[in-house]
Amino acid sequence: MKKINIGLLGLGTVGMGTAKILIENKEIITKRTGVELRLKKAADIDLNKKRDVLFEKGTLTKEALEVINDDDIDIIVEMIGGKTIAKEFIIKALKNKKYVVTANKALLAEAGEELFELADKNKVDIAYEASVGGAIPIIKSLRESLAGNNITSVNGILNGTCNYILSKIANENIEFEEALAQAQVNGYAEADPNFDIEGFDTAHKTAIMASLAYGTKVNFEDIYIEGITGIAKIDIKYAKEFGYLIKLLAITKDLGNSIEARIHPTMIPIDNILSKIDGSLNAVSVFGDAVGELMLCGYGAGMMPTASAVVGDIIDIARNIIFNTKIRIPIAGFMQNQIKNKPVLSIDDILTNYYFRFFCIDKPNVLSQVAGILGSYGISIKSVHQKGRNPQEGVPVIIITHLAKEFEVKKALKEISALDIVLEKPVLIRIEDESETDTAAA
Amino acid sequence: MKKINIGLLGLGTVGMGTAKILIENKEIITKRTGVELRLKKAADIDLNKKRDVLFEKGTLTKEALEVINDDDIDIIVEMIGGKTIAKEFIIKALKNKKYVVTANKALLAEAGEELFELADKNKVDIAYEASVGGAIPIIKSLRESLAGNNITSVNGILNGTCNYILSKIANENIEFEEALAQAQVNGYAEADPNFDIEGFDTAHKTAIMASLAYGTKVNFEDIYIEGITGIAKIDIKYAKEFGYLIKLLAITKDLGNSIEARIHPTMIPIDNILSKIDGSLNAVSVFGDAVGELMLCGYGAGMMPTASAVVGDIIDIARNIIFNTKIRIPIAGFMQNQIKNKPVLSIDDILTNYYFRFFCIDKPNVLSQVAGILGSYGISIKSVHQKGRNPQEGVPVIIITHLAKEFEVKKALKEISALDIVLEKPVLIRIEDESETDTAAA
Repeated sequence: MKKINIGLLGLGTVGMGTAKILIENKEIITKRTGVELRLKKAADIDLNKKRDVLFEKGTLTKEALEVINDDDIDIIVEMIGGKTIAKEFIIKALKNKKYVVTANKALLAEAGEELFELADKNKVDIAYEASVGGAIPIIKSLRESLAGNNITSVNGILNGTCNYILSKIANENIEFEEALAQAQVNGYAEADPNFDIEGFDTAHKTAIMASLAYGTKVNFEDIYIEGITGIAKIDIKYAKEFGYLIKLLAITKDLGNSIEARIHPTMIPIDNILSKIDGSLNAVSVFGDAVGELMLCGYGAGMMPTASAVVGDIIDIARNIIFNTKIRIPIAGFMQNQIKNKPVLSIDDILTNYYFRFFCIDKPNVLSQVAGILGSYGISIKSVHQKGRNPQEGVPVIIITHLAKEFEVKKALKEISALDIVLEKPVLIRIEDESETDTAAA
Repeated sequence: MKKINIGLLGLGTVGMGTAKILIENKEIITKRTGVELRLKKAADIDLNKKRDVLFEKGTLTKEALEVINDDDIDIIVEMIGGKTIAKEFIIKALKNKKYVVTANKALLAEAGEELFELADKNKVDIAYEASVGGAIPIIKSLRESLAGNNITSVNGILNGTCNYILSKIANENIEFEEALAQAQVNGYAEADPNFDIEGFDTAHKTAIMASLAYGTKVNFEDIYIEGITGIAKIDIKYAKEFGYLIKLLAITKDLGNSIEARIHPTMIPIDNILSKIDGSLNAVSVFGDAVGELMLCGYGAGMMPTASAVVGDIIDIARNIIFNTKIRIPIAGFMQNQIKNKPVLSIDDILTNYYFRFFCIDKPNVLSQVAGILGSYGISIKSVHQKGRNPQEGVPVIIITHLAKEFEVKKALKEISALDIVLEKPVLIRIEDESETDTAAA
């Protein structure tokens, strides 16, 4: 039986999961592929750690280069993470004409182009299903299943930490800080949670996803990123009253000559299936001109689900090696010479619906003043709600708008904030509501 | 640029959708693949029908054999349906060493083994993503993305007609007959709806799905099939009270030496994401030892969504042709010599939870009599509910059981039916509730 040797770099959580599947599920993999996938070498700086997998004797090493330079190894699986050593090792592996599998979203989002070109030059593939949405086969779906479609939008809940926290606030009526603390206690948030809760992790995944979907280079710096630290439970409560839930949504759209790529807390209709994605689950919703909507949902992180995607990639590459196919599918989903440079639309130029919460003095002419300013910037109001009565004191005033341009919204909010009757900085949450978009287009 | 010629058999709904994508989305397909996919010939018995696609001159023909015998054509797309002519044409195409793409679930469920072997012998591939769940990439996910997993269960809502009808009953509080009539008016049910509402369509898809997931030959005749015609709105109402929704579920499980494969109306917990799949949508939920749960959701039928999957298959095969790869992945997902013959567990032998509705005379000792019989067959009761009071007249009595064996349940129901105090044939609906299974296993 043909044997394909695999080298693993990094035995952290996902690296260990990958080793576990390769070793413990060897039989089912061989039954499906007809080849033996052998984990020949695995490198990690700490070999003293107790590990819950029965490695073949001689597999473990402290020297990554021993793995990368092993002539018998066909596939290098990079599970180190980060943008420095991991990048160096991937470059070395590609130059050694090894196929590479990685889940390194930060590296791919920021240096993907360079690595893909190097792989192309060396006629070896890079597979990265696990970099977006963990176990969810979004990369394969975009590059293969939906390859006959013009993809028009891809939206997703791509960070389990944020989704867990937002679900906690919504379901248990607690504030952000408490929900975060609970997430940390329960292992759903890191000790330093900033990378997740500020939206950067989601943004890396979004860059990869949008590049693939629309065949364009996405400049990571151009993505608008707003995390969930400003979300108050009162806004989640009001959102519910209007039939919305708040999710940290990655929103991407192909506008033809430009794309949208933005990450921010977003109100979505309760009957939208993404609003059912609770807790640490991830989900991606793709719209294409033929497929309509396709939704994929599963675990976006964690040892075994992420490793499931890594091993799926390894098997894919093994199948290509069997048939001597170097790069079966263009690494970035489109032929190199067809990849565009569509700019990412500035957040100022997006057109969406808005939820505003103002804290205003309860006086008879308040609503007309606020509405008047919005109107003067061409922002059409869908509904206005004053919450309770508290004459001459502060009350929350909620305004939901029709489609409006962010640039005008910002100017209007600045003017409204300056009013004497407005007591606090206004809250702005964007709404993604297709029914509204349809109405506007009709 | 390399050109790959495609021949299409049958210009019905999905055939036309396929032609539409191949012609109208030619540019995006070429950008993704680097080859030109050309619809060279398309055959249909009725060429007089007005068609909304701009075919190249000379494409249309009445002679399927002209397509199948065309030496320039690499891929034959069978969109005729049915088990007679379609089968003949596929056999001819395979013998001509053409790759075949089909969505013909009935044919694959009942004669897949024979066709797969013939394809294997002729070293050409058969692709059939569109045969299960329309646009949902379940075949690709099982054969590729999840290939590192031992798959333990695959459940699905696989028939849009049934799901539409059950959603209507639940949301509008109408009876089955009215919901069916509305489905027919709105184009969600055929004039003769039996094939859908009796569960046969779901069963065909289930046979294909279970074979792939577990690497076994599934004898279609062994699948237990129960449709939705017996569902009363009162049971949907009671189900809601207990936190359940009723769906026509395809349930498959790998039990090691045998498999479960059954289709019947099933109560599932309202917080199970499958219960959110409303209207004509389809969804499949896969459990694997690494991936945990993965859920895919989209349009299971309809012109363009189904054609999206067909074209995905065509592109997959085209990519194999480019690299001269004959059969990249075993057609049935497992190496031919690894495919098992696991029997399908008889419905009598399944272990599940049950919902019973009895119509009993409202007398003091009724519950104890009914419960006593259940107990005598070892069926443990989770809860008993008498709905309303109506002394000496009929009242509904609802019983929910813990895990019980169907064989014992049937015997108990027979004995209960024979009681004087039981006025109508009891209603039985199975419950699929993981939390319950876990409890029992613990």
